Amino acid sequence: MSRESVTVLGLGQMGSALAGTLLTAGHPTTVWNRTAAKADAMAARGAHRAATVAEAVAASELLLVCVLDHAAVRELLDPVAGELAGRTLVNVTSGSPEQAREMARWAAGHGAAYLDGGIMTTPPGVGDPAHMFLYSGSPEAFAAHRETLAVLGDPVDLGPDAGLASLYDAGLLGLMWSVFGGWLHATALVGADGVAAGAFTPVAVRWLRTVAGFMETYAGQIDAGHYPGDDATIDVQLAAIDHLLHAGRERGVDGRLPELHRELMAKAVADGNGSDSYARIIEAFRPAR
Amino acid sequence: MSRESVTVLGLGQMGSALAGTLLTAGHPTTVWNRTAAKADAMAARGAHRAATVAEAVAASELLLVCVLDHAAVRELLDPVAGELAGRTLVNVTSGSPEQAREMARWAAGHGAAYLDGGIMTTPPGVGDPAHMFLYSGSPEAFAAHRETLAVLGDPVDLGPDAGLASLYDAGLLGLMWSVFGGWLHATALVGADGVAAGAFTPVAVRWLRTVAGFMETYAGQIDAGHYPGDDATIDVQLAAIDHLLHAGRERGVDGRLPELHRELMAKAVADGNGSDSYARIIEAFRPAR
Repeated sequence: MSRESVTVLGLGQMGSALAGTLLTAGHPTTVWNRTAAKADAMAARGAHRAATVAEAVAASELLLVCVLDHAAVRELLDPVAGELAGRTLVNVTSGSPEQAREMARWAAGHGAAYLDGGIMTTPPGVGDPAHMFLYSGSPEAFAAHRETLAVLGDPVDLGPDAGLASLYDAGLLGLMWSVFGGWLHATALVGADGVAAGAFTPVAVRWLRTVAGFMETYAGQIDAGHYPGDDATIDVQLAAIDHLLHAGRERGVDGRLPELHRELMAKAVADGNGSDSYARIIEAFRPAR
Repeated sequence: MSRESVTVLGLGQMGSALAGTLLTAGHPTTVWNRTAAKADAMAARGAHRAATVAEAVAASELLLVCVLDHAAVRELLDPVAGELAGRTLVNVTSGSPEQAREMARWAAGHGAAYLDGGIMTTPPGVGDPAHMFLYSGSPEAFAAHRETLAVLGDPVDLGPDAGLASLYDAGLLGLMWSVFGGWLHATALVGADGVAAGAFTPVAVRWLRTVAGFMETYAGQIDAGHYPGDDATIDVQLAAIDHLLHAGRERGVDGRLPELHRELMAKAVADGNGSDSYARIIEAFRPAR
């Protein structure tokens, strides 16, 4: 069974993880990096080291681009735009949804298919199918290369709007920082009474599964625009958060994070929505109409 | 096989869910509620309705208390303190760790074993072993009644300090509000570009599993007091959060939550800890020494 050739442009920590994973899976892999020395390790593992970007582009139909930022992508690809026709550009460089959409138009203008990607793991996690790789852009390119992309992580298709992988990526990182913040605050709180992070965290991780169940219920409420507070109302949660604030104050734990959540709940109650579910608090985040 | 008798004091939404679940499981169940009419539904399901608190206490060795707050617990139990010797009091009323510790001392003074409980689900979730019921206090009481408590949800033993169930409960609710906040912010962000909550949320739920993996790694770092930034440094995350803030501003999405996280990261970088992992941000929450 012959595996598809792939070119990886950019061998930073993430680009090297991508190229290394493709090599391990047996894909003929061509690499290029601005600082050529970085390609040595990959060449030692069997990669073909391209001397120029043009040579790297010519080597494969599937091109993975993983560089510093959008400006670096354009700087890299503008000189070889004429060589891209018929190829597929998969750009996993971090950037904004607007930049991804611009890249999709630019690629289309040069006859190339375009996928924008969001890698939802760290470099050591590349190659583990438990982790998501988000893709948005050409559905045909996704279908054609899905099997190769699956070598890197579980490919999740977000559809034809090239901007969505970046937008999901940003939103999911925001969710991660919120989870970290809530967990670190709670770990500091229980830590003040002598509980180790290693004792508290497995309970917190299990609790995330229960919270995920609430999110699934609330997602339906958000799409329906109707927020029945059957299980737990904002009124009840506003009363409950005072226990948390009190426990934190007693222990000298910083309260900025729960105070912000309290502010969001109090606003919903002041707006007359206290008997609704927590999902209604999305209105605090949405753009004013 | 004969099932243990249980008394449930307090038949609000949660108390009724507890009593109903015990009845369904075949436990002889005695109920009492300040407003007697609320006991009708339970009596119709086979519960013994006690006319007085004293009668309810006399009916079972295992007493579950689920009322409004700590003051209501004391008001309920002070008059029957003399009847508690040899019984086990399981108090799942919301309160502070300090109140739980006071109740444990009070119960010990009257010869009763004491467990404080934190119910990590909503009333409809009672009886599902997927959900955690946290207990702290007498290890002997936990061991003796574990099987009965398992009817209500998965009993998690937090050890002999009676205050820990409340403290964990407060911390875990704080984690929940943080998860909700991050998820609702992200849902508003992707929603601005036309993505339904029902499309985004399954991806967010999957992402929580990846984030939980980071938490498990970071918990070990916190307990070791050493925060190697191998996978992702605070410096890298500080750069990444600007993508989120930018995408939010472009769409008019409220930025208070990510701005707070940015502030925590910027402080860690200013303190010279930018090359550490995110776990180091626990220092922002911990009490000043």
